[in-house]
Amino acid sequence: MEKFKATFYPQNKTVEMQPDENILSAALSAGIYINSSCGGDGVCGRCKVIIRKGKVASGSTGMLSREEKNKGIYLACMTVARSDIEVEVPQESRVDFEKHSREFEEFKKKGVYAEIEEAIEEKKPIKEKFKRSPLVAKLYIELPKPNLEDRISDLERLTREIKRSKEFSNLHSGISGIRRLGGVLRDADWKVTATLGIKDSAFELLTVEPGDTTGENYGACFDIGTTTISGQLVDLNSGNTIGTKITYNKQASFGADVISRIIYAQEPEGLEKLNHVVIESLNQIIQELVKEHSIDPNNITCCLCAGNTTMIHLLLRIDPTFIRREPYVPTANFLPVLRASEINIRINPHGLLYCVPGVSSYVGGDVTAGVLSSGLDDEKGLSVLIDIGTNGEIVLGNADFMISASASAGPAFEGSGVKCGMRAGRGAIQKVEINRKDFEVVYSIIGEGKPRGICGSGYIDLIARMLDTGILDKNGKINDIKSKRIRNSDAGKEFVVEFKENSDFSDDIVINEADIENLKRAKAAIYSATAVLAKHMGFAFDQVEKFFIAGGFGNYIDIESAVRIGLLPDLDRGKFIFVGNSSLAGAHSALLSNQALIKTQEIAKKITYFELSADAGYMDEYMAALFFPHTDLNKFPSVRK
Amino acid sequence: MEKFKATFYPQNKTVEMQPDENILSAALSAGIYINSSCGGDGVCGRCKVIIRKGKVASGSTGMLSREEKNKGIYLACMTVARSDIEVEVPQESRVDFEKHSREFEEFKKKGVYAEIEEAIEEKKPIKEKFKRSPLVAKLYIELPKPNLEDRISDLERLTREIKRSKEFSNLHSGISGIRRLGGVLRDADWKVTATLGIKDSAFELLTVEPGDTTGENYGACFDIGTTTISGQLVDLNSGNTIGTKITYNKQASFGADVISRIIYAQEPEGLEKLNHVVIESLNQIIQELVKEHSIDPNNITCCLCAGNTTMIHLLLRIDPTFIRREPYVPTANFLPVLRASEINIRINPHGLLYCVPGVSSYVGGDVTAGVLSSGLDDEKGLSVLIDIGTNGEIVLGNADFMISASASAGPAFEGSGVKCGMRAGRGAIQKVEINRKDFEVVYSIIGEGKPRGICGSGYIDLIARMLDTGILDKNGKINDIKSKRIRNSDAGKEFVVEFKENSDFSDDIVINEADIENLKRAKAAIYSATAVLAKHMGFAFDQVEKFFIAGGFGNYIDIESAVRIGLLPDLDRGKFIFVGNSSLAGAHSALLSNQALIKTQEIAKKITYFELSADAGYMDEYMAALFFPHTDLNKFPSVRK
Repeated sequence: MEKFKATFYPQNKTVEMQPDENILSAALSAGIYINSSCGGDGVCGRCKVIIRKGKVASGSTGMLSREEKNKGIYLACMTVARSDIEVEVPQESRVDFEKHSREFEEFKKKGVYAEIEEAIEEKKPIKEKFKRSPLVAKLYIELPKPNLEDRISDLERLTREIKRSKEFSNLHSGISGIRRLGGVLRDADWKVTATLGIKDSAFELLTVEPGDTTGENYGACFDIGTTTISGQLVDLNSGNTIGTKITYNKQASFGADVISRIIYAQEPEGLEKLNHVVIESLNQIIQELVKEHSIDPNNITCCLCAGNTTMIHLLLRIDPTFIRREPYVPTANFLPVLRASEINIRINPHGLLYCVPGVSSYVGGDVTAGVLSSGLDDEKGLSVLIDIGTNGEIVLGNADFMISASASAGPAFEGSGVKCGMRAGRGAIQKVEINRKDFEVVYSIIGEGKPRGICGSGYIDLIARMLDTGILDKNGKINDIKSKRIRNSDAGKEFVVEFKENSDFSDDIVINEADIENLKRAKAAIYSATAVLAKHMGFAFDQVEKFFIAGGFGNYIDIESAVRIGLLPDLDRGKFIFVGNSSLAGAHSALLSNQALIKTQEIAKKITYFELSADAGYMDEYMAALFFPHTDLNKFPSVRK
Repeated sequence: MEKFKATFYPQNKTVEMQPDENILSAALSAGIYINSSCGGDGVCGRCKVIIRKGKVASGSTGMLSREEKNKGIYLACMTVARSDIEVEVPQESRVDFEKHSREFEEFKKKGVYAEIEEAIEEKKPIKEKFKRSPLVAKLYIELPKPNLEDRISDLERLTREIKRSKEFSNLHSGISGIRRLGGVLRDADWKVTATLGIKDSAFELLTVEPGDTTGENYGACFDIGTTTISGQLVDLNSGNTIGTKITYNKQASFGADVISRIIYAQEPEGLEKLNHVVIESLNQIIQELVKEHSIDPNNITCCLCAGNTTMIHLLLRIDPTFIRREPYVPTANFLPVLRASEINIRINPHGLLYCVPGVSSYVGGDVTAGVLSSGLDDEKGLSVLIDIGTNGEIVLGNADFMISASASAGPAFEGSGVKCGMRAGRGAIQKVEINRKDFEVVYSIIGEGKPRGICGSGYIDLIARMLDTGILDKNGKINDIKSKRIRNSDAGKEFVVEFKENSDFSDDIVINEADIENLKRAKAAIYSATAVLAKHMGFAFDQVEKFFIAGGFGNYIDIESAVRIGLLPDLDRGKFIFVGNSSLAGAHSALLSNQALIKTQEIAKKITYFELSADAGYMDEYMAALFFPHTDLNKFPSVRK
């Protein structure tokens, strides 16, 4: 097959294209970074380029308007060359790393994270359905002293005693924990605590401490999200959560979504920088928790991380490049156990780091952990789990089968990429009522004080009420209504939720048409992905018996509003179950039970990944869902009523 | 029990002694280093102290003369306090680290090592009696490319293919070898070589390289001796030895024997320094071998080390303190497998390091490897293996049982601590004849040129001839004979073997009475240890069917002479078998065969360690052997004749 050349402007770089290579991919090999948050699925519409010369073939897409098409604009990811071509990359399609960094700084300035922990802290003890067997255990032993008759080496003496406990009969030893063993044993008068971690189906002797320290054995579990990282410190003896923290993922300054991060990782030292900052974020959580709860970090003997596939690659400094290249294959879904210190996580230097296995490039260990904690994999009836984060992941199935997909929702529901967005923390507007007559707004916020922004559930409520009151039409355009709250802006019309004088925000708290467009695409991506999965398996939505809703803002969501805008299907409301941060909850379970960790491996193996971009019907479903609630109102009988 | 105080002079330091703690041990806890090369067995006589005040109880020892006893001199290791005591530590009993360093520099200046390799290089291929299965294997694989139907992760794809080979069905992966796996697989068009190492009874995927590199897979094996280190580079495909090198153990500048090293390891940073220099020595061997044979060090995928227990502790930076404290227990005899790079050995950074397991503090992995290579553990008849290095280790047994002991021979036979000593290299006097009438000397040297010194086998020959010609009496004293070759010196009388003008040595080449005393103690220690083992098991020497002689100078030893001086028992000469550097040969076998490595583990477990110092009869045997050949000439019928 003939190979064509592509020349990119304004960079004036030429590359030879592989047969049927799309322009997005060719640009990358020329070192030109084009925006793309859907991973080349043709659904985010961010990779627009202008073909100045040459012939191309392009897949159909609803992301381009007629005018754009007339101007020679194409989506780079959906377009291949049929001759040598010249491509112009407009400013807005170029990845602007500096802009990401600026945006992130702005986002941080809103300062809404400082006290967010109180909001997400799980006060109720998590139900332990797995047999307690922490990944790292401590065992107190009193050894018989050596004498001239019994003088096997210290290590053999120790392992001989440990192996008397049947549980630890398959035991290995590393080197780092035994270098000072002789002194430790003797100084402790042969009464010591051995720390034993599960690795490769056996136990590894990690370290030996004088005396009985079994009372102090902690683990840390993390949900590493693209935007935020949640961490918990867990008492491995009692199973109690000592504390929970949430922080930014500092990687956000290198790009808002996984695709931008993967692109950044290809920069010189890019992977190292991304790796460094995510570990900084984890260490910050650990440091704050141990300080607050007066715990010696040496008594944290293990870490367990759940996260999307890209986050886990970056955490372990594994090159993530191929996650975003067809056929979207990650380097590893099942990750080896390593020393936490190998990647500079500051717990006990001999402590271990585990990762919950993922399913595919876009369905990661966070979803596996979510399935574990929701119990979907044990359900008899048809169930759905949706996790709405920067990506929206959906699992449909039960004890017999599971199928999953990832929808490029974007971070709008997480409060990013929308003007007044914030996460569900103190000061976040979470519920909204609008007076039908004068459009005055009544709202409630999380915690006390003045509003600081709008969280995901607030946006859902807000849009639902704007629809109810006729402020917004089903296309997502704000109607021409005479009100002090409705006005024009740079980002289309906007609706003022609260004026500056009554807020703790630097400006009026508003929602504009660009925000609404972002939120509409996000909800459409999630709804249509769920619909495609059900259809693919031959189910109708009303056959779903349990619909688990996970994600940071899940607990605050108003089901009626979510159905009203078409984010959730129009099911019997009793079927919806909020599971909160199910990724963190699953990680918590696995930290406390090897049986649970093994179960995550079984779950990851069992889940089939469904590639939306390879499905002919997905784009149609998505286009149909780009309305509030949907083109086909028959699908939303309760809304139609 | 009452605790007494000991005050040491001239240091003027006081410590509280533990009940029944000996003075040597108390001195150490006061930070005072007293010479001791027998590990506190009361047989080296180097820890003499003067009790100035107080009551003591002391075990009987032949190491002190009547005059010494009258002067209040005691062996610190054999003496405990019965009241508060004042102890004077004479200059000659103090460990002088600077002196060690100076001596080592002198030893090096003799410059006899430069071309020593030619002498020890094993040209003949080593017989492989074990099934070839290198500890680290390379496997070339052509992977099916992923596509939208088959898109498990890269790592799972790779391991799926590797596991098709039944041999590798138990497979784990580390993290460091897979970080760039995605790029490697695609750049190599999915044709790659996986490097797989045996660890904890499973295989670990160490690294993946593009293309077929199976043709280049090398291992390095080492015998780490107290004085010298021998290393071989081995082609793991053919089993051929690529090259052999010998070098100083640079640790020698911190003390001549293991005891001094252990003492030095307790200095601040002492362990780190000892560790650093031994690894420098290993790296030097590797570097020279890869340079000479144009081999990429990245293609060396594993290292295997055999060495005495102290050497292995220092190699792995394990605190060796307790090796020399009763009851003489090492931290570990069985060592975990680790990455060679963890201790800065410069081979492939993902390559593994194995150690041959040891038996006890004073019978190390070098002996285990020696048993493997000699085949003693498969013998039906009673056999003996002696390995004469800085310590003399003896194994007695056969396929049914094995018992071992370690005799503190000192490094005299290795050419250290004797005035004109050198190892068996170019220029070493190795055979000597003395004219009965005029005492003129005829000798042969290793290689060509002028003599540079006397090696172990040369000393044995020399003493035997001095005995035959009446120059030396059976006590080891040089008789008053009028000859230009016999004269007085600072170290008693001396006999000139060659005058300066005919030598490449800086002075006349001589043997003096102090040398002879050293050599006599060394041979007595080895002979008596062997005798005690045989006696303990109820055997007479003439029941021995095979007597394996290992050690650097073994190949050059003259059996008649060795029996003449009483180093070897007076057996039928056909029973003696030279096995050369059996430690290195055993390491070589284990490098090429996991079956052999497993066998070393079985051997180490099977060998019983016999503590000479705990045996009532050992001192008597030793004292009786402090003559040439022995007090009891009936034991040496061929000499009597």
